[in-house]
Amino acid sequence: MFHQHTLPNGVTVLAELDADAHSVAAGYFVRCGRRDEPEELAGVSHFLEHMAFKGDERYSAEDMNRVFDEIGARYNAYTSHEQTVYYAAVLPEHLPVAVDLLSTLTRPVLRDEEFDLEKQVILEEIGMHEDQPGSVAYDALNEAHFAGHPLAGSILGTNESIGGLSIEAMRDYHASRYVGSNLILAVCGNAKWEEVLQLAEEHAGRAPKGETDRPLPEPHPPGAVRTIYKPENAQQTVMLAGNAPGNASPLRHAAELLSVIVGDDTGSRLFWELVDPGRCEACELSYTDFAGAGMYLTYLSCDPDRAAENVAAVRGVFDAVNERGITAEELAQAKNKVASRIVLRSERPMGRLGSLGGNWQDRGEYKTVEDDLADLRRLTVHDLRDLLTEFPLEVVTTAAVGPLETMS
Amino acid sequence: MFHQHTLPNGVTVLAELDADAHSVAAGYFVRCGRRDEPEELAGVSHFLEHMAFKGDERYSAEDMNRVFDEIGARYNAYTSHEQTVYYAAVLPEHLPVAVDLLSTLTRPVLRDEEFDLEKQVILEEIGMHEDQPGSVAYDALNEAHFAGHPLAGSILGTNESIGGLSIEAMRDYHASRYVGSNLILAVCGNAKWEEVLQLAEEHAGRAPKGETDRPLPEPHPPGAVRTIYKPENAQQTVMLAGNAPGNASPLRHAAELLSVIVGDDTGSRLFWELVDPGRCEACELSYTDFAGAGMYLTYLSCDPDRAAENVAAVRGVFDAVNERGITAEELAQAKNKVASRIVLRSERPMGRLGSLGGNWQDRGEYKTVEDDLADLRRLTVHDLRDLLTEFPLEVVTTAAVGPLETMS
Repeated sequence: MFHQHTLPNGVTVLAELDADAHSVAAGYFVRCGRRDEPEELAGVSHFLEHMAFKGDERYSAEDMNRVFDEIGARYNAYTSHEQTVYYAAVLPEHLPVAVDLLSTLTRPVLRDEEFDLEKQVILEEIGMHEDQPGSVAYDALNEAHFAGHPLAGSILGTNESIGGLSIEAMRDYHASRYVGSNLILAVCGNAKWEEVLQLAEEHAGRAPKGETDRPLPEPHPPGAVRTIYKPENAQQTVMLAGNAPGNASPLRHAAELLSVIVGDDTGSRLFWELVDPGRCEACELSYTDFAGAGMYLTYLSCDPDRAAENVAAVRGVFDAVNERGITAEELAQAKNKVASRIVLRSERPMGRLGSLGGNWQDRGEYKTVEDDLADLRRLTVHDLRDLLTEFPLEVVTTAAVGPLETMS
Repeated sequence: MFHQHTLPNGVTVLAELDADAHSVAAGYFVRCGRRDEPEELAGVSHFLEHMAFKGDERYSAEDMNRVFDEIGARYNAYTSHEQTVYYAAVLPEHLPVAVDLLSTLTRPVLRDEEFDLEKQVILEEIGMHEDQPGSVAYDALNEAHFAGHPLAGSILGTNESIGGLSIEAMRDYHASRYVGSNLILAVCGNAKWEEVLQLAEEHAGRAPKGETDRPLPEPHPPGAVRTIYKPENAQQTVMLAGNAPGNASPLRHAAELLSVIVGDDTGSRLFWELVDPGRCEACELSYTDFAGAGMYLTYLSCDPDRAAENVAAVRGVFDAVNERGITAEELAQAKNKVASRIVLRSERPMGRLGSLGGNWQDRGEYKTVEDDLADLRRLTVHDLRDLLTEFPLEVVTTAAVGPLETMS
């Protein structure tokens, strides 16, 4: 049963309630991510997410962990280019404490000493990130593909931006982004709407009123090749980016299905062409939809000597799909896979939460599992043909990390 | 809704069906594991699990993967000391194919060429296992603690036993263990009992009739310290074993709760005493119940210079618990944690499957989620006191891996 309400301060409250569920999941979806940061504050959204767990005037950092633990909560948080999400799953009787704690996360007190300590943690995280070829390639790809666009930067920020960040700048950023109209409180599972509303008013009602702007410029990827030379690596890591529909496009379901047909980790075109015969260790294509932009990302890891021919083979797969489309049999198999993933994910309230909050944040819409399955099942070979006409599979941007000095 | 039936060949068919579930999970629980192996065949159960995915007369290895993929199945398998489990979760309409494939896994054709290739894979797996301090310490601990007992050996086997294994010996072992009375076919989620029965008769009904013996000698841990010197490691890895109730003991629920209070990864006695103050990187106590035996296992990873004092601190925590028991507050918190885990795990058919098959295999019983929660909630401080009287927390066996040459 779906419910929606807007509090006087602008916070949206969403609920998909089911009296037969055994647990309840709650979370804040905050419209605050890497794309909202000026370059000098790069990484501040993610840093803020860490600071959230340090508590407020009532709760110390230790209290936060202890109380989440006492109620047996499974909880976590993450930051992306577009949002910061805090969530927890608990038994129904612990929902009030869970909402209290989650709400506390959205208004941390930001103590000086903890800020300095956590800054070191973030700098270490950046260091570890830079040790991983996949992370380095991903950041280089985004930077080249979205050059000059808000989606270009690394979510963690840089040593310079984080090293130079002041607590005052973080406080100002927090005050500007964690305002009513940027907050969604979503609840899924076993709860009563009256209880959800009352908890929302008590806790989410304390967020300051406010609105913020988020520009959605169209990206214009210039087409680029970035090669990062790491002679110590054994494998060559290659990432390829192409244009795809954004999160408001009606083509996004077809794009999701196409990515499974072409690049799923098993049984896809790229799997049979490159992975199964042992030409590379991994070769997958995935689809990511942002507000106002979308990207197909192909990830490839292989022996450096075979990198060039493997990239050519990926292009060959793309060309074949663009020219001849996909078969009805491929479509049917991919529908089975995607339907199974939708259903298995939706079986627990915690799995439904992401869909509830994400659909509202992206499109202001509510979709049941049945709606999602119906959207999937009605797709035809012609829909995929139309998608390919508008967004052919292409290599627009290339980023490579490993022992090759250049890649073209 | 619970159903149970025994086929003429001895296979047990179990089902917990729910017409409101969106998926269905099915699995075989095979009473065949490391404890059933003569030493010269050490690791054959696990090796067989790998060979299962190579198919039979109808299906090649490629077919197996392809068909699981086509129906969008999430599937896997594992081998323990006591059992081998094969399972899959699918949308309800794909149950017939899933049961067909799972049943195929229980009667692989065992082709020579694939046997030789897979043997190399297993030997590589043993090599990787030996690179991991935790795995080395765990195997050394079991070997010392269960000396002379069927639970002593490593599940993977050894280079010698696997290297010397013949396909004929594997065939004989398979023929002796994969017989009707050792097989449980369990189904959870959205299906009809008539359909389950019919699929079971068609596919599980083909298993050969047969019975096998499994001796359950009582272990008599001699008390031992094993130190494996690895000067190249930065950290000292220490594992401590103590006696605990077996899987038929009515004390097992109390033992599970005690392990959470004393050694959960957050908020436990060991956490506050050793991990939170930074004395070690990790310190956790877990409880494992076997048929006819049980073990508390404490895992500790720390700077080698602090290993001795940390082990002394663990003993101090054990002594305090043995002498003064645990508090009502600790009990209440641990019940919240365990209840939350039981419920969150049970929300999907795939999560219920392990409980359904395991309870039947271990004790021939069926327990609903509500039964499990009721068993948990009725435990008192006195029950934990009784448990500690019969099974005090002790360090019986020690295994250490790292830069220390000796540990006492």
